[in-house]
Amino acid sequence: MIRLRGNAIVGQSGGPTAVINQSLVGLIEAAHQLPEIETLLGARYGVNGILAERFIDLFQESKETLEAVAQTSSAALGSVRKKPTTDECAQMFEVMRKHNVRYFFYIGGNDSAETALLVNQMAVETRYELRCFHVPKTVDNDIRETDHCPGYGSAAKFIANAFIGDNLDNRALPGIKLNIIMGRHAGFLTAASALAKERADDGPHLIYLPERPITREQIRDEVAEVYQRLGRCIVAVSEGLIDAGSATQQTFTEVILEEATEIERDTHGNIQLSGSGALGDWLANYLRTELGSKLRVRADTFGYLQRSFPGTISDVDAREARICGRMAFEFVTQGDIDGSVVMRRHAHNGVYGIEYQYTDLANVARDTKKLPEHYIAATGNYVTPDFLDYVRPLVGTLPTVGVFDGISESSKGEMGATQ
Amino acid sequence: MIRLRGNAIVGQSGGPTAVINQSLVGLIEAAHQLPEIETLLGARYGVNGILAERFIDLFQESKETLEAVAQTSSAALGSVRKKPTTDECAQMFEVMRKHNVRYFFYIGGNDSAETALLVNQMAVETRYELRCFHVPKTVDNDIRETDHCPGYGSAAKFIANAFIGDNLDNRALPGIKLNIIMGRHAGFLTAASALAKERADDGPHLIYLPERPITREQIRDEVAEVYQRLGRCIVAVSEGLIDAGSATQQTFTEVILEEATEIERDTHGNIQLSGSGALGDWLANYLRTELGSKLRVRADTFGYLQRSFPGTISDVDAREARICGRMAFEFVTQGDIDGSVVMRRHAHNGVYGIEYQYTDLANVARDTKKLPEHYIAATGNYVTPDFLDYVRPLVGTLPTVGVFDGISESSKGEMGATQ
Repeated sequence: MIRLRGNAIVGQSGGPTAVINQSLVGLIEAAHQLPEIETLLGARYGVNGILAERFIDLFQESKETLEAVAQTSSAALGSVRKKPTTDECAQMFEVMRKHNVRYFFYIGGNDSAETALLVNQMAVETRYELRCFHVPKTVDNDIRETDHCPGYGSAAKFIANAFIGDNLDNRALPGIKLNIIMGRHAGFLTAASALAKERADDGPHLIYLPERPITREQIRDEVAEVYQRLGRCIVAVSEGLIDAGSATQQTFTEVILEEATEIERDTHGNIQLSGSGALGDWLANYLRTELGSKLRVRADTFGYLQRSFPGTISDVDAREARICGRMAFEFVTQGDIDGSVVMRRHAHNGVYGIEYQYTDLANVARDTKKLPEHYIAATGNYVTPDFLDYVRPLVGTLPTVGVFDGISESSKGEMGATQ
Repeated sequence: MIRLRGNAIVGQSGGPTAVINQSLVGLIEAAHQLPEIETLLGARYGVNGILAERFIDLFQESKETLEAVAQTSSAALGSVRKKPTTDECAQMFEVMRKHNVRYFFYIGGNDSAETALLVNQMAVETRYELRCFHVPKTVDNDIRETDHCPGYGSAAKFIANAFIGDNLDNRALPGIKLNIIMGRHAGFLTAASALAKERADDGPHLIYLPERPITREQIRDEVAEVYQRLGRCIVAVSEGLIDAGSATQQTFTEVILEEATEIERDTHGNIQLSGSGALGDWLANYLRTELGSKLRVRADTFGYLQRSFPGTISDVDAREARICGRMAFEFVTQGDIDGSVVMRRHAHNGVYGIEYQYTDLANVARDTKKLPEHYIAATGNYVTPDFLDYVRPLVGTLPTVGVFDGISESSKGEMGATQ
């Protein structure tokens, strides 16, 4: 087998995760092993760095620095959200030709896979010999083909920790609590809140996924039912939840923003409802209006904390992300192969394990994956035990919760507590 | 010395923390040592549990359960926000008489100390012999007399982790980022964000404290200056930040809510701006309007996650909280003493240490402490090295951050990145 001799470029793209640098460092380590690779260039801010020739020489970095970067959240090279145009692709090949680049690695989500696919297709058309490989990362876990994505396990661990704490908080000062979670089209991250439930009356009590459109009235009734029964209610809400009552199946956020537009005109544009807290605040106000103004209803929007929080990185996630980076390099140097790394799960005697394979870029680019049907409870407002079996090995150990034996499981709280 | 023989009651009050159960368990362990104490009753939901005679017998709990509860966030007995009336105090003494209770412990903030003071005063007036002791807890760190409060170190550790992650996230996808932090009147928790700053251009770049009123125009200008210089800007904002432009020195949140009231009338009460995301969303919109609508401005409101997150508990905080509970018991049984536990800091050869003392309930009840002047930078928008020396030992180890040597310290980002 004759390998392409030349340089390589790696870039990071899309929203950062807690372990995207693990993949980068895994890739650097693998590149070091290969005499055909003279230099591995790190592009600053993804494809923008290629266009602007903003590179750093990753072979100059020490072992110590690499290990420190691997354990650091977010994208060390800088990231970008950008799909290059045809002209920009041509410009990128100019830059690559100039630097004798024959390998292009892009670590990112489905959009980044699409960029890699585009670059690959353009390279074929313009007869520029280039190997393109995509390394999956996303907290949303919505990339097709792979069992799960590096980045998801750590974000899910953050969500689980947050709900363990919030369930205990809500147990101490009962009320209705809404938590808004990332994941525009896929409910994987919102579903991970179920990891916090250990005892029968633990929260989350309701999980609202983008895969299950629902009306505001249904939400109200389901929350009221839980509150009647337990004296409190914790709800996990996906930011992409769809309003089944809207004519065109819009998200609640879109519906709220539309309702807000008229108001903006009334008030000279000073007040807008866009911004991360909008859905949670609106839903809290709606429930207060419908169920009783004296009810303690609170909403938190987890926001950007979910994707780069360094305090709750999953060991499994970090290890797998590292291997994904390494495997991308190994696959691409096995022949004329372009593709995306795929993790396939196997369980020998019930022990979780992963086999690393690859698939065509076209199989992961553009379209995303949703939470499979068998992970969603028949009621539509919770997950199945199957989902918990799926997610547990990705997250690893979670804090244990101690409760006094003298406190019965069903601890209907005092009403009227404030804050 | 003759000790009062009888039973004891302990309750938890106010907003939960990650280590309030450590204090509770420390107290239970100390009570076990004393033959004069026949039973230690745990009141469910603070004073409400005394009024309703909702107790659990804490002497029945096993060593294993106690240790598990100690390591669990939030208030295991349940909490409450309530100042009992004179009639309710009288009713509480009836209950105590019935159960032969001679010791009352209340774990909470300044409001809880006020309740303990009130109960103590009423006990003296009605000649009911009762020892009252308060154990400090709060994430706000605003209790007087004590060097710091159990609960603060763990909340500060969460804030530091959040800003370490957010700084890296913002480095990868540059823009203006606002984070709203708890602390209605005291800036201790907001100030702890400074722990995330390691390199010269790390965030937070601006820290806005409730102790330093500021106008919206000043905020705009200071953010614009940082953004011009670094290509990004991370801002820590206290939820209690005061609008220096308002006639009566109201908080920004109050000002926003007032502005929103008119709109509510216009829209039949469907839209309200109250709720946790209001300040962050408003400030993000304001900056976008003033500095350019294409600017990437985002806001996160950390909300309730700050106080009960189990993934970032400070070891020092947990240990000190445990000792505070134990000491409350030891002090109260040394004679006719009512009071509140106080931590005094000492540094033998620069090594951090704490001496446990007590003070009169009146010295900690009602009024709170603000961030001392020498902890606030002369510019008013940051903290001093003195503050960092103060807070570091309370938080303990933080995640380290690795950066490629090839990336210069001042990494002015690409503009126009989205999401």
